[in-house]
Amino acid sequence: MTTIQTNLSRSIRLAILQDRAVPCDPSLNIAAIDKAARIAAEAGADLLITPELFVTGYAPPELSGWMTPARIRPLAAEISTMARHRGIAIVASMPDAVDGGDPEHPSFAIASIAWDATGEELFRYHKVHLFGPDEKAAFVPGVRVPEVVDWKGLGLSTVICYDVEFPEAVRNLALRGAQLVAVPTAITTEDGYIPRILVPARAAENNLVVGYANHAGEEGGLVFGGNSVIAGPVGREFARAGAGPALIIVDVEVGARIDGSPDYLGELRADIFRV
Amino acid sequence: MTTIQTNLSRSIRLAILQDRAVPCDPSLNIAAIDKAARIAAEAGADLLITPELFVTGYAPPELSGWMTPARIRPLAAEISTMARHRGIAIVASMPDAVDGGDPEHPSFAIASIAWDATGEELFRYHKVHLFGPDEKAAFVPGVRVPEVVDWKGLGLSTVICYDVEFPEAVRNLALRGAQLVAVPTAITTEDGYIPRILVPARAAENNLVVGYANHAGEEGGLVFGGNSVIAGPVGREFARAGAGPALIIVDVEVGARIDGSPDYLGELRADIFRV
Repeated sequence: MTTIQTNLSRSIRLAILQDRAVPCDPSLNIAAIDKAARIAAEAGADLLITPELFVTGYAPPELSGWMTPARIRPLAAEISTMARHRGIAIVASMPDAVDGGDPEHPSFAIASIAWDATGEELFRYHKVHLFGPDEKAAFVPGVRVPEVVDWKGLGLSTVICYDVEFPEAVRNLALRGAQLVAVPTAITTEDGYIPRILVPARAAENNLVVGYANHAGEEGGLVFGGNSVIAGPVGREFARAGAGPALIIVDVEVGARIDGSPDYLGELRADIFRV
Repeated sequence: MTTIQTNLSRSIRLAILQDRAVPCDPSLNIAAIDKAARIAAEAGADLLITPELFVTGYAPPELSGWMTPARIRPLAAEISTMARHRGIAIVASMPDAVDGGDPEHPSFAIASIAWDATGEELFRYHKVHLFGPDEKAAFVPGVRVPEVVDWKGLGLSTVICYDVEFPEAVRNLALRGAQLVAVPTAITTEDGYIPRILVPARAAENNLVVGYANHAGEEGGLVFGGNSVIAGPVGREFARAGAGPALIIVDVEVGARIDGSPDYLGELRADIFRV
């Protein structure tokens, strides 16, 4: 577990892809990410965040029988090549084989992986809090917190979907120096309180920026609610998408101490309010 | 530190007083609470929650020179009598002398005290997270978590203002069985993200109800923003006041498992995401 100290403040241009993926058709989904990466890079964006399992589509029951090492292994390298080719950092989410066990029949986790604009991998995180019976049947949970990495002098990290609903998850990242948290997600129209309340709360209570990228439209029998959001300190909302497909490209202040923003990390009495 | 297990679910009628207090004039402020208690009780309310330091007015610099044992000591007994007389439970906030030191010149904490409808005191909590230089000059911080008490079969507890902005505070209460958290507060119009985002987040992420009672209007040179809110699971908002004086009286489901509300307390992996 690394702790980084950047203390830098800067404006970055952040892109979020919100779209419908096609389950079990990675070439189609990777083409959609590549198109977004090309447009975002041409617009000067530094980082593109994409939704949970967008590379394979979010459909745990269908993925369960479809995932094999031969199908999954090449995907990360394709996104790495894309990042280098387009010249933009990318956070993408896909199944990732878990070490140990039978290498021909591995268990898979839900990963969030980041590459910088040269294609170098920055972190690879396995979702700790799997949501509901379908995810738990198709995937195994991660057992380690995500790394917080120094990206362009800023503390960059990630969690995935359900993880962000637990305040402990983002607090853990903030205490280790995270200033920008990329959150691939897949939530339905019924879960509107999450992008409306919980995601902005994580940003406000930790004085950091959260980029939350959701699917839009029908996929694997579920209807996803969009509402991708980039939230910051003191309730700042840098951008919010509607329900349909969208590509957000927006300048975001990361690491700046905002007037009126309490020193939540410094003043917390965790010794008294133990959890 | 007590842990209670109620597991009861029921509808209660909850009242919140949002108003302007007059600094250093407790008889006027207690009369305002008494009027609200009478009206709320006549309307069948079970519990009245009032704002932070409403009994003395929220004005730490003025209170600092005004607070004496003779002025402060009788106040709690007056609210106890009021609760019994009106037949309604009350949560009120006032300065409270801290044990130890010179009894003629005690230090004062900011207290949140609850009485049931017979006037019996249920808990007395001293604010742990004091906010800003004025509060820290006038008051000493509490050093203990609030009790969670069994009130009508429900787990009732409290924190005060700045406390609720720390997710650890309400998580601590939830893990000890709190189902309804009464939060006296005093926040200005510039702090709108707190009632809009952070308070609803505390309710949603812990599957409990938060009643957040703020001042309205000018008091001690500050302009308070109202926006008192009663928030519940999955983003439910039972009531929200505007900026001006208000008496909210509303039925609230406490302890009910709401459809679609994740089991946040059961599924949290605090062993992995340590804080």
